Amino acid sequence: MKVVSSIAELRSELAPRRDGGHAVAFVPTMGALHEGHLSLIRAARTAAHIVVVSIFVNPLQFGANEDFDSYPRDEQGDRRAAEETGTDLLFVPQVEEIYPPAAATTVSAGSLGTVLEGEDRPGHFDGVCTVVAKLFNIVAPDVAFFGQKDAQQVAVIRKMVADLNFQVGVEVCPTVREADGLALSSRNRYLSSEERSRATALYEALRSGRDLLLDDADLDTVEKKMWEQLAERGLQPSYARIVDPDTFAPSRKDGRRLLVVAARLGSTRLIDNLLIEE
Amino acid sequence: MKVVSSIAELRSELAPRRDGGHAVAFVPTMGALHEGHLSLIRAARTAAHIVVVSIFVNPLQFGANEDFDSYPRDEQGDRRAAEETGTDLLFVPQVEEIYPPAAATTVSAGSLGTVLEGEDRPGHFDGVCTVVAKLFNIVAPDVAFFGQKDAQQVAVIRKMVADLNFQVGVEVCPTVREADGLALSSRNRYLSSEERSRATALYEALRSGRDLLLDDADLDTVEKKMWEQLAERGLQPSYARIVDPDTFAPSRKDGRRLLVVAARLGSTRLIDNLLIEE
Repeated sequence: MKVVSSIAELRSELAPRRDGGHAVAFVPTMGALHEGHLSLIRAARTAAHIVVVSIFVNPLQFGANEDFDSYPRDEQGDRRAAEETGTDLLFVPQVEEIYPPAAATTVSAGSLGTVLEGEDRPGHFDGVCTVVAKLFNIVAPDVAFFGQKDAQQVAVIRKMVADLNFQVGVEVCPTVREADGLALSSRNRYLSSEERSRATALYEALRSGRDLLLDDADLDTVEKKMWEQLAERGLQPSYARIVDPDTFAPSRKDGRRLLVVAARLGSTRLIDNLLIEE
Repeated sequence: MKVVSSIAELRSELAPRRDGGHAVAFVPTMGALHEGHLSLIRAARTAAHIVVVSIFVNPLQFGANEDFDSYPRDEQGDRRAAEETGTDLLFVPQVEEIYPPAAATTVSAGSLGTVLEGEDRPGHFDGVCTVVAKLFNIVAPDVAFFGQKDAQQVAVIRKMVADLNFQVGVEVCPTVREADGLALSSRNRYLSSEERSRATALYEALRSGRDLLLDDADLDTVEKKMWEQLAERGLQPSYARIVDPDTFAPSRKDGRRLLVVAARLGSTRLIDNLLIEE
């Protein structure tokens, strides 16, 4: 595995590896790699000749009062994990390499970026779109891998790829969970052991919601039940909704539905989701 | 010359032509081609093996009260002119091909897009960035050609290419003028013959401004003089400024300076500019 920190170096490392038309699979991450990320890298490894992983904690997708400064960073552990999982090129740019002081052009996710996560985190998805557009132009991958854990991010990126005509395949890998159901997240590291035990409420609420839905409960009832289940365990819900997995508009009763929840546990904000395909 | 109207067809026509690493030069236009456009196509012809020209009147860069509906269209004349000038592929998409009904993702030019032209035409440069980003992703050119006539557009696109890491060279060709100095523009077709004779005031104001500057007049005096010269000929100036040609911030006295003017002549809005490099 080669580790590079500049765009120019990444491009010059990539060019000869592409010779003969070899495909490039790309996994953009913010580091603090866990099994969820590693499942993406393994999927990339089976998909293409060249696997590029980026680690960049993107300031543009954090709000002013969010956890950019404290976001977990573990460069040595990340390097080891990326290498063991089959990464060819690890791209670890500094902030100035991605955003020189005069940088101003941004990509806006549109209305999909302003609901749910986007409503709680104004500007978040514009920041995601901007950095992913940049990384797509820097890496020029044939295919890129994202986790279903961040379901709205997946929808936003699929939409950006379609709307801006990026020639990049978007592959989505299932959420990886702890034995008790908690979705893996770099932010789980923030939880005290007491909070950690209550964090299972997110997935439990989603499963209750799914069961009710499959029992033909109406959408309002299901959303209310999920919210209550989070609140009963002492979490502060941001939302508990049933949406269309592509548009994040309120779901109709049939077809593909996505249950999404977000809640605060102490100072930590966690999200989870469950897709129902019939 | 092959004429295509769908993105898929354009890509499938382009792929085999690229074989062996042939470069692609791209000239995005809004049609109503004049000698200014043709100079771009000729420059593209000498720069690369494959020349792609697009004709697309981009609704996103027109304001609600602007001339999108009446913007001159001349498909037959444009085809003939593009072919005679050496175009290989002419891309003439319908609006729905570029903006399907649900399209939402946009590219924002940032602060450079909100001054001067951007102040008079809110959203204009975001519309320009969005369509050019899309066309760059559709055509994947090695180099793209733009006219100095639209100087702020040039600055915005250079900035977008740098900020979003597009791997596209940006080449800028000089403004083509009529014998009396009027910069060629598709919008000149709107002018009555009486307005046409007064339209030379833009270039005359720029030349007066340049002469004063080279005579060491201060910036305020020069800007005031250009404004007055436009007004004296019965034009309604929008701005008459001296700016940095990259940032469009107010210019300092030395180095590269760009004189920019915009004015209304009846219902037609015209722009022009003059670069001073010392």
